[in-house]
This record gives sequence, C-alpha cells and structure tokens, in this order.
Amino acid sequence: MKRMEEMILSEGKVLPGGVLKVGSFLNQQVDTNFMREIGDEIARLYKDDGATKILTIESSGIPIAISAGFAMGLPVVYAKKNKSSNVSGDVYYTPVKSFTHGDTNNVVVAKEYISPEDRVLIVDDFLAHGSALTGLIDIVDQAGAALVGCVAAIEKGFQLGGDKLREQGYRVESLAIVDEMTDDGITFRPQY
Amino acid sequence: MKRMEEMILSEGKVLPGGVLKVGSFLNQQVDTNFMREIGDEIARLYKDDGATKILTIESSGIPIAISAGFAMGLPVVYAKKNKSSNVSGDVYYTPVKSFTHGDTNNVVVAKEYISPEDRVLIVDDFLAHGSALTGLIDIVDQAGAALVGCVAAIEKGFQLGGDKLREQGYRVESLAIVDEMTDDGITFRPQY
Repeated sequence: MKRMEEMILSEGKVLPGGVLKVGSFLNQQVDTNFMREIGDEIARLYKDDGATKILTIESSGIPIAISAGFAMGLPVVYAKKNKSSNVSGDVYYTPVKSFTHGDTNNVVVAKEYISPEDRVLIVDDFLAHGSALTGLIDIVDQAGAALVGCVAAIEKGFQLGGDKLREQGYRVESLAIVDEMTDDGITFRPQY
Repeated sequence: MKRMEEMILSEGKVLPGGVLKVGSFLNQQVDTNFMREIGDEIARLYKDDGATKILTIESSGIPIAISAGFAMGLPVVYAKKNKSSNVSGDVYYTPVKSFTHGDTNNVVVAKEYISPEDRVLIVDDFLAHGSALTGLIDIVDQAGAALVGCVAAIEKGFQLGGDKLREQGYRVESLAIVDEMTDDGITFRPQY
C-alpha cells in the first residue's frame, strides 16, 4: 500500500532499539481518514475469502480491526492481554511474549465469540517476531474455526516473523514491509 | 439513544456485583453496524461544538472513539494505562482508580498529541464512578486545551459519577443511563 509507505516516511520516527514510532497516525493518535483507507485496503485484499469475523488484540490493533470491520461489514473480536496466570471462565487463551516489554501475557478470548463455523481474518498493527499473530492463530485453531489470513499494517521484515509464518503456509499480507531501518532511512520490500 | 437501550435489553447480561456485561456487541466483540450508529449519534450530539480531537482510553473506549472520529472527521487519541509508577518522557499523566479491578493505573498521553489549541471531546464505553472521565478531563486541563464535553455509551446512573460531573458543570451525554439493574430487569433514566 503506497500510502502506508508514504505515511511511514513522512510521519514515522526511527528510535534506538529497532523501534519505529508511528504514534502520530497509527497508534496513540489515529488519523481516521487514513485509517479508513487502511480498512478499504484490507477489504480489497480479502474481499473474496468469505471471512465472517475479524480478530485482533488490544489495544493498538483495535482501530485497524474496526476500520476493516466497517469496510467489510463484519463483527470484530479483540483478544485481551491478561497479566495474571490465573485465567478463569470459558475462554481460549495462549501465552504471548512481548519483545518490546520483555514480559509474557496470556491472550484471552471468550469462547462464545469464536465458533467452529467462523472464518477468521486476523488483523494487527505491527508484525515483528510474529508472536502476537502466532498466539491469535492458536486461538483460532483452539476454536476449530477456519483462518482466512492475517494482515499487519506494518511488518518489520528484518525481524522475520512474517516470513516464518508464510513458510508455514499462512497467508500474511502487510500493508508495508520495512526491510531495513537506519538513521539514514527506511527501505521497503517491493510489493507492487 | 433508543437503540442502545434495546441492545442492552436484548444482548446485555446483569452479573453479580453490579456488572453489566455487553461483550457481545460493545466490548470484546464489536457489532460494527451498531458501532457505526453510535458514531453517528455522537456526531449528532456534538456537531455544533467545534471539536478538533476525540480523546478516549484504552481498550474498550477505542472502538467508540474511532467510530465517532469517522462520523465527525476528527483524529482520535487514546490514553494508555501504565501500571508502573515510573512514567518517563514528555507525557501528561494522571492516576485513575479502577473500581472493577481494584487497582490504580497512571493514564498517559504523549504531550505532542494534545495542544492548547485543541477542543477535545472525551469518549468512553462505560461511565460508573466517573474516575476514567475525571482522569481524562485532568489531562485535557493539563494540556491547556478546551473540553467540549464527554460521551459515555452506557452510564450506570446508580453509581453517580455522571451526575457528579454534571453538577460540576461538565456536559456529559450518555447514550443510555441505567438507573436500576436487578435480576428482574433494567430501568433506564428517561432521556427523550
């Protein structure tokens, strides 16, 4: 998505430790006009795949999932991060390690919101090592639902999570893939 | 908003401890068609007030804020909950006590995303004791921005936070106000 690359170049900031800050338009602050374009692009990518539900993870995946839900006319479910190891009730859960924060959360979805009949499209803001997507895929598997595919707004190609998932046979679409990121500039993987 | 009351009656569940569960359409799972109506209603309520930005708090306020942002053509900023007392960087923060979880989080917004020129509309899913709204109002005050008003999707009138804020002179609109909630039924405050 050309516009995503343009937004990253004009608004993004490369910080130490491999951090790409896009808080001015994608998370923390959300440019709703651009977010609508993101939703439309996700709808275009997956329009023929019969998705029945969009699954994301709090918090920064939610704006993207809602926009895609609007564009595709689908309900959205967001997984919650639960720091306590004590997960109760009728839920699916899976541990997800955060490389940014260095801790592990249980990612939790109430069973009633994903059924074996569902065809699930997974959406998130960032794809780096792939731990969040892997956790969400595990939840779709636990539910016995079908996985249509995954979308990340921004993939950090150099952290290899996306390519590992593709090698496992999953369809993973990223609206922009950053293959290199230095103080001097950002190199995107050619996609179109 | 008549439709909000209807959705609460048809989909909501009253749980012990004064909990109203609306996870099937408002949080956890989001009915995006109904969420679009919520955004349109918020736009109708505040169409003449010159808001420049919508402020909410992660996670369950985000779908409502994004929908309102779409309907009003405004950017959305969401405050983050930071469990560590150690808040660094150029941020506004204020402590917010959660009555549901019994703990206190710092609610944090990067200073660059709210300026003194902004006219801020605050949006959240639930209004009970009013602690989240009070914290967000404090952040708007710290930024020197103008507060246009507040919207809650559902107000628990019997927990009095909304009325306390109204007594202090704030404009607080709730799409449905639950004045009583028992196993036998839900009583809404007449609003229209």
